[in-house]
Amino acid sequence: MTHAHNPVCRIDPSRALHALRAIAERDGEIQAFVCQADAASLPDGAKAHGEGSRNGDALGGDSGIGEDSGGSLRGMPFGVKDIIDVAGMPTRCGARAMDGDPKVFDAACVAQLREAGAIPVGKTVTAEFAYTSPGATRNPHRLSHTPGGSSSGSAAAVAAGMVDMALGTQTGGSVIRPAAFCGVIGYKPTFGRVHRAGMQVLCESLDTIGWFTRTVAESVSVASVLIGAHEAPAPVRAPKVALLGCETLGRLSPAAHDALRDCVDRLERRGASIVRPALDADIRALVEAHGTIMRYELARGMLPIVRTREHLVGEATRDAVRAGLAIDRDTYLRQQGLRAQLASRWLDEFGQVDFIVAPSAPGEAPQGLASTGSSVFNRIWSLLGWPCIHLPTAAGELGLPVGVQWIGRPDTDGALLQWAAALHPHVDTRAAC
Amino acid sequence: MTHAHNPVCRIDPSRALHALRAIAERDGEIQAFVCQADAASLPDGAKAHGEGSRNGDALGGDSGIGEDSGGSLRGMPFGVKDIIDVAGMPTRCGARAMDGDPKVFDAACVAQLREAGAIPVGKTVTAEFAYTSPGATRNPHRLSHTPGGSSSGSAAAVAAGMVDMALGTQTGGSVIRPAAFCGVIGYKPTFGRVHRAGMQVLCESLDTIGWFTRTVAESVSVASVLIGAHEAPAPVRAPKVALLGCETLGRLSPAAHDALRDCVDRLERRGASIVRPALDADIRALVEAHGTIMRYELARGMLPIVRTREHLVGEATRDAVRAGLAIDRDTYLRQQGLRAQLASRWLDEFGQVDFIVAPSAPGEAPQGLASTGSSVFNRIWSLLGWPCIHLPTAAGELGLPVGVQWIGRPDTDGALLQWAAALHPHVDTRAAC
Repeated sequence: MTHAHNPVCRIDPSRALHALRAIAERDGEIQAFVCQADAASLPDGAKAHGEGSRNGDALGGDSGIGEDSGGSLRGMPFGVKDIIDVAGMPTRCGARAMDGDPKVFDAACVAQLREAGAIPVGKTVTAEFAYTSPGATRNPHRLSHTPGGSSSGSAAAVAAGMVDMALGTQTGGSVIRPAAFCGVIGYKPTFGRVHRAGMQVLCESLDTIGWFTRTVAESVSVASVLIGAHEAPAPVRAPKVALLGCETLGRLSPAAHDALRDCVDRLERRGASIVRPALDADIRALVEAHGTIMRYELARGMLPIVRTREHLVGEATRDAVRAGLAIDRDTYLRQQGLRAQLASRWLDEFGQVDFIVAPSAPGEAPQGLASTGSSVFNRIWSLLGWPCIHLPTAAGELGLPVGVQWIGRPDTDGALLQWAAALHPHVDTRAAC
Repeated sequence: MTHAHNPVCRIDPSRALHALRAIAERDGEIQAFVCQADAASLPDGAKAHGEGSRNGDALGGDSGIGEDSGGSLRGMPFGVKDIIDVAGMPTRCGARAMDGDPKVFDAACVAQLREAGAIPVGKTVTAEFAYTSPGATRNPHRLSHTPGGSSSGSAAAVAAGMVDMALGTQTGGSVIRPAAFCGVIGYKPTFGRVHRAGMQVLCESLDTIGWFTRTVAESVSVASVLIGAHEAPAPVRAPKVALLGCETLGRLSPAAHDALRDCVDRLERRGASIVRPALDADIRALVEAHGTIMRYELARGMLPIVRTREHLVGEATRDAVRAGLAIDRDTYLRQQGLRAQLASRWLDEFGQVDFIVAPSAPGEAPQGLASTGSSVFNRIWSLLGWPCIHLPTAAGELGLPVGVQWIGRPDTDGALLQWAAALHPHVDTRAAC
């Protein structure tokens, strides 16, 4: 059995070279990248793997790893959030506390993408340790506005067209929120399904690797490689949809509110049935549990770093560690218990719907670079570990992107992506803007 | 609020110095260690943390991290399985494929133990990537026999009295089995409760950090630091116990069989009520699911290493990667679904018992160093993520240790340890040997 993407075959580096030129041209003002691949060292397939001599592919080219049905990742340049290892590049985590030695091995997810023929062309800016202290990245739609975070550089790099795809991570709202602010597709898969080897994990039970693309089709291609989610049948009926406005978490801007309502209206006009469950108490409990669990785990994951190089760690991160260290084990376990109980109840609650529609962010990207904006509408789904996709659908009052978040039940990634691929064109009003 | 173990206080290095002398004297024949701390660099508390100048403890000494009620870890020397980072030492994973550069940061668990005053004195031998290809370690009870694995060096180092405690990890049976073969206490906590930052994680949903000690009391002290499990009240009644002989997984040696029966008899004589659930079909299904899930995840975690340095990876590990790559996503997800379903059913099944008694290993440590022995009796509990403790209770036909495994439900670590502390003296027949 042979595959078009067999790693011993040559990979055309022209798209990667084009990406490097785009980075050279545009990243001066966007500042999405912290380092780039050397054009002279771009892989050509045969040289992509193996330091030593290599006689064929002893582990087999028919591994299933890196297999996407269309082979559409072949030659695709991608960016990698700088808390995920790429061989030959350092992993600095947006932090002065981290060293700059190049890594020997790719992270597991990078190796899988490389196996499928994709080419990592650079590391992207992250908030410090993927928490809140922002990096230098600007929003490509308006340079004076935040791109969101913590996967700031990855979202901006895709939005600015420098790369076709970029990897990010989400612990609170670090994929879906920057996708919303930058107007690109953001995908956070079911928790636990993308291997985190080679990622700087700080919140063990929350950190999830996701990705940014400009089209749903590209996001499906990445999913097919990283979580094998390509087997879902294309939908042939109108969906059953739950609308979860999450009003109890705060007001949406008029444009974000309209985007949510308009999305549901358009789905309904295409025959979707809509339910509107009232879950305010659960939602508040989930957001509170998320905060406790995140801080407890973050503090323990950061302990080695703050104890060794505290003077190089930013104030916001140190504050979070301090708050997390003050949380006792019983409180943490109670919140983990509540999380399991609500996850089970919500599985029943949403057992009959195809997906949930909810806000991605409170509104357009806020002005200024001092904050990456609010993740309050994302934390529920990070805690539950349910797959989410951000779909840009409109422009807001300021002309910046707004959109909606669709959410599936765990391990329905394939179906969620298929629904999004089929229906995004019907809810996307941007062509009319 | 101040603590006796405040990290700015001095820590007496005398026990650590004693451990280094013991290693120098005994490790030539045991070969439990791959590297040791330099005696001249042993921490004295004030120097234990911080590369830069440090004015007091800005994050607070009252963190709760590293807090064990008795302070009994203060000055305790410990070994660290060589897939877990210790600052200043390399992490080689028992593998020729890994580099030998010293790590900058401790793993989270090492930092927590250091915070409590314990002193890492060396890295211990592991099977290659904590899988099956054994290292050089010999069983301190008989040098021609395996110490078990993959946490071979950690179990042997504690058994030989070179250190009081050592960290290991379990994916299949890599803590409980070497504890059984070396006749020490082995503890594998509830999955997910010890932070894995700084550990080489290969099987995301299985890998669990555990530890070896010579007494249950020492294991409780470690648990109090790493999982805060010190709040459980001491038991004041006879326990309700389930006996799970797991006969469907294979025959026990006469001595292992007697150890199991004798343990239950002795518990019964102290008033314990014993139930004997018949779960053979579930047990077989769990063991099969474990194999599929382990190989699927291992293959993806190992992919960056085998694609870069395949010629430096051992045959058994490469075989496992090849087998794992051949498992498709749907098969993996079906087994994860079965796992969740059986975990839920077993929570009900064992909801009324205080702990389960089951075999730790098929018998005494097998002769030879080419295999680390069978993990078949451990895989169920690794898959379920339930906490386990190995208790040595007797000597077998060859004069080597045998014992039993006690298992609790998730997050009952404190209670399980308290039961073990209270009852181990009553089931331990070794003094009479």
